[in-house]
Amino acid sequence: MKLATIRTAEGTRAVRATEDGYVDLGFTDVGELLAREDWPARAAATGGTTYPVDGVEFAPVVPRPGKVLCVGLNYRNHILEMGRELPEYPTLFAKFADALIGANDDIDLAPESTAVDWEAELAVVIGRAVRRADEQAAADAIAGFTVCNDVSMRDWQFRTKEWLQGKTFEGTTPLGPVLVTPDELPGGVRPALTMTASVDGEIMQKAETSDLVFDPVALVRYASTIMTLRPGDVIATGTPGGVGHARKPPRYLADGNILVTEIQGIGRLINVARAS
Amino acid sequence: MKLATIRTAEGTRAVRATEDGYVDLGFTDVGELLAREDWPARAAATGGTTYPVDGVEFAPVVPRPGKVLCVGLNYRNHILEMGRELPEYPTLFAKFADALIGANDDIDLAPESTAVDWEAELAVVIGRAVRRADEQAAADAIAGFTVCNDVSMRDWQFRTKEWLQGKTFEGTTPLGPVLVTPDELPGGVRPALTMTASVDGEIMQKAETSDLVFDPVALVRYASTIMTLRPGDVIATGTPGGVGHARKPPRYLADGNILVTEIQGIGRLINVARAS
Repeated sequence: MKLATIRTAEGTRAVRATEDGYVDLGFTDVGELLAREDWPARAAATGGTTYPVDGVEFAPVVPRPGKVLCVGLNYRNHILEMGRELPEYPTLFAKFADALIGANDDIDLAPESTAVDWEAELAVVIGRAVRRADEQAAADAIAGFTVCNDVSMRDWQFRTKEWLQGKTFEGTTPLGPVLVTPDELPGGVRPALTMTASVDGEIMQKAETSDLVFDPVALVRYASTIMTLRPGDVIATGTPGGVGHARKPPRYLADGNILVTEIQGIGRLINVARAS
Repeated sequence: MKLATIRTAEGTRAVRATEDGYVDLGFTDVGELLAREDWPARAAATGGTTYPVDGVEFAPVVPRPGKVLCVGLNYRNHILEMGRELPEYPTLFAKFADALIGANDDIDLAPESTAVDWEAELAVVIGRAVRRADEQAAADAIAGFTVCNDVSMRDWQFRTKEWLQGKTFEGTTPLGPVLVTPDELPGGVRPALTMTASVDGEIMQKAETSDLVFDPVALVRYASTIMTLRPGDVIATGTPGGVGHARKPPRYLADGNILVTEIQGIGRLINVARAS
């Protein structure tokens, strides 16, 4: 199944994507849907209002996750090409829900930053509360996958050792357009998909999501050691090489740039960077 | 005013502390109260059910803040005694709401960590949505102050460069017992109070909250540049010297240890460390 949260005149709605349009599932958003233990049955429901595909506007697939966990340094090829050793533990940092935007919303280029960069990422969405998950429980806790661009203010990220302040600027992080359940993806809970990011049509990042050092199941296991992961929580699994900050000279998003982030089999984020 | 969230047979309730007991304010918790624009008037309400002082059980003063921001390296004396320079920018990191516990709850010593440490902190609670706050707006956005102990799994904190994973273990971070409005504190929105932490009666940390490099108003200004701060959001302002990790030899919390964290004029957290 492909699920989304769309904006309507009556507020946001959780929907399932079908060939005929988006079927209303009776919930405000995908986060509220996933909080129901029987969400897979409810997500399969038929007969609801169907919204036409044309003109649909996406909210973040989960608009207010309880937690947005992000992973740094997680693509094998990128780590090795940088001459680093593979890490023993995942690097985890946070993003607050205020950072999230829809799949086609503008990215807010805050005037306080002059170094806004892209980071295409596969994101895991949790569908079941889980703590200290073993392999099977971790796999079962994954509701599905979506596309994220962990847009980062590099100047703020590196003001101090802790990255948070460069990672959570309001209105910068597209998440969507849809959540795709693992049964629809090659590789299932360890999806093997091609991911790309482009700026104004020029490919900047291209990677296979199978190249993750810590795969989605491993990340759920690790994070759930620390705390209970809950329905609607998001784990952005890290970005491959090709970010603007690492280019010589560095390249950052400018007013009017179109950032396209795509994962084959999931969908595409198209976001215009806009000076505010 | 002194506000708290207490646990009753009917679930949590927002209350105001009076000499006669805790007066029910008609909201589930202090976070829900603060989300009302007219919260100061509602918090002053009289006539609600009054719960006796004896036997009251505190929940985290805001049980599910949208954001818990934490500040590192923020006490002047401690920074200077370590031979470091005063920082140009505050170091910010996050904690998720799952980490929070009430003022007298047990601290969960997860079996995965062997280095659980204390960090007494003054915490700011936001009472009004604010973005890019100037001095006055930042001061006005502060609902009040509470006590926090940013209990930290040092082994996990230093597994990678990003501290998050050592800072957000579930059920480790007491927050409370009460929120005190600035008008009741010497120094107002820049409180000048003595803060202590002790383990089994031995004083481990003692500092004046006036010694912060980035005071509460400055922190609200800084954080609100990045994103909108919202009612119920919490900023833990950082800890002074005296943590267990810096002792020679290091000292960590063990099963049965009683951690007392107190800020004069606000209140006291008394938490027993318990192996789970």
